Amino acid sequence: MIDTPSLVDQYCHGVLRTELGLGTFETRLGAHLGDRRGGPPGLPAAGTTFFDTQTGFAVRRWCPPLLGLEPHCPPARYLARRRELGVVEAGRRLLRASGISTYLVDTGVAGDLTRPAEIAATAGAEAHEIVRLEPLAEQVADTSGTVDAFLANLAEAVHGAAVNAVAFTSLEGVRRGLATTPEPPGPGEVRGAAGRWLAARPAGGRLTDPVLLRHLLWIAVTAGRPLQLHTRDLDPAVLGAFAAATTGLGTDLVLLHAYPHHRAAAHLTVVHPHVYADLGPALAHTGARAAAVLAEVLESAPFGKLLFSSGAHGLPELHVVAAGVFRSALTRVLGEWVMDGAWSPADAQRVATMIAAGNARRVYRLGPAVSPR
Amino acid sequence: MIDTPSLVDQYCHGVLRTELGLGTFETRLGAHLGDRRGGPPGLPAAGTTFFDTQTGFAVRRWCPPLLGLEPHCPPARYLARRRELGVVEAGRRLLRASGISTYLVDTGVAGDLTRPAEIAATAGAEAHEIVRLEPLAEQVADTSGTVDAFLANLAEAVHGAAVNAVAFTSLEGVRRGLATTPEPPGPGEVRGAAGRWLAARPAGGRLTDPVLLRHLLWIAVTAGRPLQLHTRDLDPAVLGAFAAATTGLGTDLVLLHAYPHHRAAAHLTVVHPHVYADLGPALAHTGARAAAVLAEVLESAPFGKLLFSSGAHGLPELHVVAAGVFRSALTRVLGEWVMDGAWSPADAQRVATMIAAGNARRVYRLGPAVSPR
Amino acid sequence: MIDTPSLVDQYCHGVLRTELGLGTFETRLGAHLGDRRGGPPGLPAAGTTFFDTQTGFAVRRWCPPLLGLEPHCPPARYLARRRELGVVEAGRRLLRASGISTYLVDTGVAGDLTRPAEIAATAGAEAHEIVRLEPLAEQVADTSGTVDAFLANLAEAVHGAAVNAVAFTSLEGVRRGLATTPEPPGPGEVRGAAGRWLAARPAGGRLTDPVLLRHLLWIAVTAGRPLQLHTRDLDPAVLGAFAAATTGLGTDLVLLHAYPHHRAAAHLTVVHPHVYADLGPALAHTGARAAAVLAEVLESAPFGKLLFSSGAHGLPELHVVAAGVFRSALTRVLGEWVMDGAWSPADAQRVATMIAAGNARRVYRLGPAVSPR
Repeated sequence: MIDTPSLVDQYCHGVLRTELGLGTFETRLGAHLGDRRGGPPGLPAAGTTFFDTQTGFAVRRWCPPLLGLEPHCPPARYLARRRELGVVEAGRRLLRASGISTYLVDTGVAGDLTRPAEIAATAGAEAHEIVRLEPLAEQVADTSGTVDAFLANLAEAVHGAAVNAVAFTSLEGVRRGLATTPEPPGPGEVRGAAGRWLAARPAGGRLTDPVLLRHLLWIAVTAGRPLQLHTRDLDPAVLGAFAAATTGLGTDLVLLHAYPHHRAAAHLTVVHPHVYADLGPALAHTGARAAAVLAEVLESAPFGKLLFSSGAHGLPELHVVAAGVFRSALTRVLGEWVMDGAWSPADAQRVATMIAAGNARRVYRLGPAVSPR
Repeated sequence: MIDTPSLVDQYCHGVLRTELGLGTFETRLGAHLGDRRGGPPGLPAAGTTFFDTQTGFAVRRWCPPLLGLEPHCPPARYLARRRELGVVEAGRRLLRASGISTYLVDTGVAGDLTRPAEIAATAGAEAHEIVRLEPLAEQVADTSGTVDAFLANLAEAVHGAAVNAVAFTSLEGVRRGLATTPEPPGPGEVRGAAGRWLAARPAGGRLTDPVLLRHLLWIAVTAGRPLQLHTRDLDPAVLGAFAAATTGLGTDLVLLHAYPHHRAAAHLTVVHPHVYADLGPALAHTGARAAAVLAEVLESAPFGKLLFSSGAHGLPELHVVAAGVFRSALTRVLGEWVMDGAWSPADAQRVATMIAAGNARRVYRLGPAVSPR
Repeated sequence: MIDTPSLVDQYCHGVLRTELGLGTFETRLGAHLGDRRGGPPGLPAAGTTFFDTQTGFAVRRWCPPLLGLEPHCPPARYLARRRELGVVEAGRRLLRASGISTYLVDTGVAGDLTRPAEIAATAGAEAHEIVRLEPLAEQVADTSGTVDAFLANLAEAVHGAAVNAVAFTSLEGVRRGLATTPEPPGPGEVRGAAGRWLAARPAGGRLTDPVLLRHLLWIAVTAGRPLQLHTRDLDPAVLGAFAAATTGLGTDLVLLHAYPHHRAAAHLTVVHPHVYADLGPALAHTGARAAAVLAEVLESAPFGKLLFSSGAHGLPELHVVAAGVFRSALTRVLGEWVMDGAWSPADAQRVATMIAAGNARRVYRLGPAVSPR
């Protein structure tokens, strides 16, 4: 009844180019856990497996049929079939069946992952780049000899990236950068922090300095592209203060990964006109519960403030699962409201199209939808 | 099956006396957002409208039929019909169809809003006044020449208001007044704060001083009427500390507007015998999701501790929507529990009557229910 | 369709040996509220009763049929029948009908409660002891003459208790002990705190010193048994820091009583391999809503990380209710996911068995299940 023909995945990563065994595949299912602190993927507890999670069950529900197997077949059988087809052909079948017609790809994570152009070719879809701020700053540090050069190059790099990027994203900005204050640091404070960081920094050293992270967020705010903020373990007061400080500047903030604080994130989109919320991993990782979680976000967020994403990383299965659970959840939730008489069918279809694609097209200025090839 | 014939709306405001165009009406749909910080109503984000929210959809579901139109008709058509009838007749039809037989009205907000007696006449119902503490203190400040006079007049004004008011309410008391400690400030501290405020205060200046706000809450606690506390963005620890500090004093606390922290608010009603929770805006603003939110509150709160309200402000449509979604949600939630065998039909009917009206009649000592005229 | 034949109740208390009147029984229904701060059971608000709660309604649903009455019969009738049978026979009928085959019993609370061996005999089941850390430390203080003796005896007592206990538990450890830091206190700090406590302590005085509570948790961490932490009003940041500090030490942490923060607790089990979450009171106290709360926990927690318990204290009715609502909720939630095609029937049955008993048998090394006699 409710149709979501063409999804914009407003935040994802590329997929691995190498063949995967059962153990490596399982590790990737839990990889979002390790990502969180920048470390290696976590291990399951003794006596347990990442296949025994909503994500694991959802992969077994949605993916085997796309490779010619029964849903819920054993993981080993699925992996054998995947290797039989080869990583390229399996990835092609999976992504082309996902229903995603536009991918916005965060290219700032390590690993042998496909780039936006390659995703577009594999999936028969559009793809655009999201630039992650921390690696950009680390690259600038690698090639800048002095504090003055670093700070000038940093601003230039962010503004330069804004020409082709559809958005910026920051993993550590909220957690480390905004803990004490949302305001931009003063020039002296920034110079001091830059001097200390550059002097102590080994080659390739990560940016974790709170002042520089905050400075970087504020450069991005002036660059005119939407700024996506990872908000796991968010303190709503911290985000609310940054939202208040950036009101009226013309840059939209998109809150990523808020689960289990998705209601608090939705509430921030009510209060602040320039704040948007992502639905991705909250649905992809909750599998059979995605409809319930989606319904919670729809309680308070204005319907023009919500954006679909997969948050997928490494496995095309995760793009497929995110799209499948999202469409299934959206159809169920809005369909029930129509059945109850709470919503009209026309409104339900209109809101579905907004959340699936229309809001993202407006916020990221993507131009009209292209039909999947 | 479950019947809620007569509602007590334990917290609302009056309605606007002027005709409204489409833009003004839309602004009022989002007005609860601006209220929060005492400022003007907020604006929707670019490319969005407050009609595309659960509140907007709920108004279009519940109100057009009361004015002779189809549910979910376009906003412009509804507003045209509303103007055709005139603001008085439209308000009369809406309020008389709401099923609310008693209105407790917070009269302490600015704007050309109907007063309790006028609401009673329009709605064919009872209405009582809730006195908001901050404007009362500001009026006392306007007419008191010295610190001594101000403090004496303040206590007298609160105790005087308690004669006719059914309750007191405070918007800023929790957020600003209780942040550091729940205890009443000492006399010297209060005198100092009063002196500084009166000296610096322009005519009509708002009360935002934390010490005076806390002092005001504690005067209200001694006045013997229930004290309604606005708790948006509540820190449950702060509320819990104030609840602990006011235990055994004989004054009930009613927590308003706790969503999205409604489960934490419900939990406080479990722990503290004199703490009650409001269901109003949590249901009115979540529309099609109201049954789910109501069910969450009913998880832990004792059934004698919950109170219906609309929280409506400015538009009689908001009283109608709140009553409609509440009744619909209550019937659905309790009805399902009866169908499952988890509750008996008699218990479900008894609890419905308690939450719809009985608890409020007991807490506010309203006397027996009057049938709506 | 989904079968949970034999439950392991991984956290409960004994039952009262005395006959109970209506008033005493009602007080016990609300006893978990008083427990929380170590004080006496709380009182219901004026004009309300603890029978008008989800727990009260659930007792009336599940228990009367086990004593030959209609479900939902009036409390007075149920209590009369209970006295007619006698406390021993009523307890026997209730526990034997609960479906619990293994009880893990926290023996560290005051009151005339049955001990594990007596529960086992009454219920025709296995029972094992959980040792509560605070009373153990208080007993050691009662019998140690010096700081040196106290500290040596304390370590010996914990390690000695680990021989027979299946787990340790701490009520105040998280709330008071970990507030400032998760790290073990240094020897000098511990000696100082012990000296001050022993010097000021009246006979039987409670342990509330934060340094000694933290020291006690860390002794327990080295004792090799799972450590159950009461987490009501948990600050997830505090628990997360303790989880991080205890990673890789080989001791599992089990989070008890997290509601209304059960999603945050579930999230901690995702991030930390050695952290588990309890389902007990979150389901037992939410009654008709247990399926919804269970479903929320199953959103993110790996299925190998969840443990059933009753959390029951004093009344065998509370063991019955916990088991009944758990089984009913599990069957409903997993059954719906199977109906939707989201889970396979075999997976649903496997996960049900894990949560009902298998995970607890693995974590507490209980050996294979024994059929209830």
